[in-house]
Amino acid sequence: MTSVSEIVIGIDGGGTGCRVSIVDADGRVLGAARGGAANFTSDPVSTKRNITLAVHEAAAKAGLGSDDLMRASVHAGVAGVLSTSDAEAIAHALPFHSCTVTDDQVTTVAGALGGRTGVVISIGTGSFVAFATNEGTRFIGGWGLQLGDQASGAWLGRAALQRCALAQDGLVEPSDLTNRLMSRLGPKPRDVIAFARNASASDFAALAPDVLDAADAGDINGRHVVQDALAYLEVCLDRISLAKDDIICLTGGLGPRFAAWLRPRTQAEIVPPAGTALDGAIWLAREKYKEWKCNS
Amino acid sequence: MTSVSEIVIGIDGGGTGCRVSIVDADGRVLGAARGGAANFTSDPVSTKRNITLAVHEAAAKAGLGSDDLMRASVHAGVAGVLSTSDAEAIAHALPFHSCTVTDDQVTTVAGALGGRTGVVISIGTGSFVAFATNEGTRFIGGWGLQLGDQASGAWLGRAALQRCALAQDGLVEPSDLTNRLMSRLGPKPRDVIAFARNASASDFAALAPDVLDAADAGDINGRHVVQDALAYLEVCLDRISLAKDDIICLTGGLGPRFAAWLRPRTQAEIVPPAGTALDGAIWLAREKYKEWKCNS
Repeated sequence: MTSVSEIVIGIDGGGTGCRVSIVDADGRVLGAARGGAANFTSDPVSTKRNITLAVHEAAAKAGLGSDDLMRASVHAGVAGVLSTSDAEAIAHALPFHSCTVTDDQVTTVAGALGGRTGVVISIGTGSFVAFATNEGTRFIGGWGLQLGDQASGAWLGRAALQRCALAQDGLVEPSDLTNRLMSRLGPKPRDVIAFARNASASDFAALAPDVLDAADAGDINGRHVVQDALAYLEVCLDRISLAKDDIICLTGGLGPRFAAWLRPRTQAEIVPPAGTALDGAIWLAREKYKEWKCNS
Repeated sequence: MTSVSEIVIGIDGGGTGCRVSIVDADGRVLGAARGGAANFTSDPVSTKRNITLAVHEAAAKAGLGSDDLMRASVHAGVAGVLSTSDAEAIAHALPFHSCTVTDDQVTTVAGALGGRTGVVISIGTGSFVAFATNEGTRFIGGWGLQLGDQASGAWLGRAALQRCALAQDGLVEPSDLTNRLMSRLGPKPRDVIAFARNASASDFAALAPDVLDAADAGDINGRHVVQDALAYLEVCLDRISLAKDDIICLTGGLGPRFAAWLRPRTQAEIVPPAGTALDGAIWLAREKYKEWKCNS
């Protein structure tokens, strides 16, 4: 029989849903569950409830009781965790004796690198760059669309619409991309203005695949937008001193699209992510367990 | 006694309030009034009500009755008028037989140029560039902060906060400006992120005077932001062919601040605006009256 002290639980909470996985010391999944949205800034009450429900569902599947959960080693990476007090509020709501909580950037990096050192470039609706060394992890970006999120899906979509505006005003050449976006969201400028005024980051990000496809096809405006995004990523990489064995992982829905555009010497370091943010949560929970075992 | 057919009424409607002025054929003010906010896109009902109330107040001061108003020559420039149907909705709500309605960009240009040809660069919370010839007026910009409004107060404030984010991430040098803004809105990055997430265009624009002051004082980040703004304005001016007597007017709360930064050959054409958007509305109403008189 498995000792309960070897139960490791990973939790991944994001704006579209949360996932819980319970594994044993060998990484075998004992139980898993999915739940509702878990962005602590947007909705703290639902976040705590949805994660708690998913934990209990996964525990039931694994045949674990509350005593087992109390002694599990747990890490949760939750979107919208901005402070220690946010993390504590989530930890206190969960049925564990001890549970570490971070934002989901930390678990994304842990999952992608799986214990190795190097860089994670995460590009989904938002974006960030992280540099993990043996001394710790430095995060760049993650400021949101108004202040940053350069190269993110939302940023790419919005930048393409900005090219539409410039093209309409005769300040840059129109192209297939700008014509297509104007037809899709306009056709009149006021329609595009109305779209942009009310658009969420996700609404802008929905345009990003078209922008990347256009850039791949040589569209002048698509390329302009992607070149601006790449210029930012290269500045980030220039500020980072890679060691010999450091790897670069491109994560998020759009990250891998950038591989072919990056500088050859950057491309040479790129490896596929080792795992997801949920894998990262499990990895961090297990590290914590190992540390506890060493010290006990 | 003044003939009622010579009554000219100008109306200026903007997001912070509306103004009505009733003048005679010689430009003497017979009555004037101020009223509440009048942005048709934001709040069509209040816009129509606030303008109507101000019209009746100005008419009462001028001692005019409803018959006089019915025969007045009227132009209204109202913020947030995006279509012919918007303009008609406002015109129908007002107690005039005939009233032309445009957005406030048209009256801003008419007021600034006062019948001359040339360029108006309007920089307040938002921005636009207009080029008026004898054949008509071409408008550039006015796409709103998400898609454009380059060089506007909101754009300058947001761009300065973007420099703060880059400085915090070690991607550009911090400066007095970025340090001051971080102290004011932060000091922690998450405070600045929270501010930016909820900030209106006016909130960002409130930071613009600091940005321009910093640029004047040689601050590296202030200058970077202003140079980006100027690059856009110069591209707009490059697309415009000025004739010999064409003038350039810098309007809006921040427009005049850019005079000293523009190219010398641009500076040479700059003259102070002839008048305000309310003056522009009166000017357009009078032109309409003259035209009507010629044709009758």
